[in-house]
Amino acid sequence: MSRSILTVPIRKFSRAASVDEQDLLSVEEPLQIRAGERSLAVTMRTPGNDAELAAGFLFTEGLVRQARDIADIQCSRNTATVTLAEGVSIDLEGTERNFYMTSSCGVCGKASIEALETAGATSLPRGVPKLDELTIRSLPAKLRESQAVFNRTGGLHASGLFSAQGRLIVLREDVGRHNAVDKLIGRAFLDGRLPLHDHVLMVSGRTSFELVQKAVMAGIPVLAAVGAPSSLAVKTASRFGMTLIGFLRDDRFNVYSGANRVYESK
Amino acid sequence: MSRSILTVPIRKFSRAASVDEQDLLSVEEPLQIRAGERSLAVTMRTPGNDAELAAGFLFTEGLVRQARDIADIQCSRNTATVTLAEGVSIDLEGTERNFYMTSSCGVCGKASIEALETAGATSLPRGVPKLDELTIRSLPAKLRESQAVFNRTGGLHASGLFSAQGRLIVLREDVGRHNAVDKLIGRAFLDGRLPLHDHVLMVSGRTSFELVQKAVMAGIPVLAAVGAPSSLAVKTASRFGMTLIGFLRDDRFNVYSGANRVYESK
Repeated sequence: MSRSILTVPIRKFSRAASVDEQDLLSVEEPLQIRAGERSLAVTMRTPGNDAELAAGFLFTEGLVRQARDIADIQCSRNTATVTLAEGVSIDLEGTERNFYMTSSCGVCGKASIEALETAGATSLPRGVPKLDELTIRSLPAKLRESQAVFNRTGGLHASGLFSAQGRLIVLREDVGRHNAVDKLIGRAFLDGRLPLHDHVLMVSGRTSFELVQKAVMAGIPVLAAVGAPSSLAVKTASRFGMTLIGFLRDDRFNVYSGANRVYESK
Repeated sequence: MSRSILTVPIRKFSRAASVDEQDLLSVEEPLQIRAGERSLAVTMRTPGNDAELAAGFLFTEGLVRQARDIADIQCSRNTATVTLAEGVSIDLEGTERNFYMTSSCGVCGKASIEALETAGATSLPRGVPKLDELTIRSLPAKLRESQAVFNRTGGLHASGLFSAQGRLIVLREDVGRHNAVDKLIGRAFLDGRLPLHDHVLMVSGRTSFELVQKAVMAGIPVLAAVGAPSSLAVKTASRFGMTLIGFLRDDRFNVYSGANRVYESK
């Protein structure tokens, strides 16, 4: 339990009043799944039951067939090392058909945040734009209104790019939340409009490390979400000076990082 | 629009009455992102804005820096082929630090469902277990009650393994829904309890291809979700004879596939 939940300071805004509080976050950290010396996969997960996760991953991906194929699983902080039973081998040629390499899964090998710095993330503008809390609270309704035209299925994630004054500029939807953000940033990239220093990105779901990573790359200083952020999302946002907003509703929201960009309405 | 939404027949259960209806699904299909002849990534996405998706992916992953690095993007049904500008190259050595190979992203190279068959998915028991619709409607409350102990963050996906009589056997939580399912199946795998032919898997979010894939591998004949399924989730469930339930609430649910396992309470 202790490794799966983290307490962090937040600023909670509700109807023109703001208070400093503590909030609980789900921990998100990378787990590298290894077979002996070989890295098979890295997944962003909540620590706990790591041996189960490694075994379940190997089985559901068709890499092992039965419990006795695995002799041992050793878990350290962010690594699960599987020792296969004698005579059992993993056909990686076969698995390469089944696995994807994608950003939706985070960053492996190096520490996540360091890798993001290596990837060429630019710094965000310090302390700007300034955002009225009323403007922030107006975003969910605007996203919903525009999304309603497209989404009649209840199954799409939306991401919206807003001006600092709260005007919706681009909306994109996808079954994958990372894809919705990639489409939106890809549009701005193709239009030569990056970095998006004077903008707010709003997403319909939760905020993982990955979404913060993508926003940092695009130079977006404010990321707001209807859902909760993960621990690594908050840590990464703090590191890059991003304003990270969660549980955004029409009447309230929490600021997890960069509260200096948000001011109370008079 | 036409490629992003699909109409399918469903059976809708609500308070002991069931009706056959049509429902709208978000389309989920793999997109392979290529640089010339080289496959960079495959992501499960909703078709539409594929060029933006490819550009956004390349940029947010640090593979290209500016719009003029890309000379052209050609999109066919499920492939986006990026032609880099003269003198621009992609450093895949560098990217291998950043990308993950993981199941959370689906199946590449071969058609998704075929790859699942290749991976050794076993067939599901035909027409059993039979499930009382009252039992099905009792699952969300049981999942919530058990989850409440663990999840005080609002940021965790839950997956619960139930008996056909509706008894909760294992609950796992994670920031990644695929991880929550892998942990649960991993537990059963390590305990030598697979295939889980007489069980129901319930998940707290939406159902993607990937979750159906994992349930099929574990021999689970019934998958129920609080959220909506994707088109590929339904297609895969149908192919393997799985009962797929969506929008499961205390008073209603939709059956997208395998309705023959569900009977009305008398």
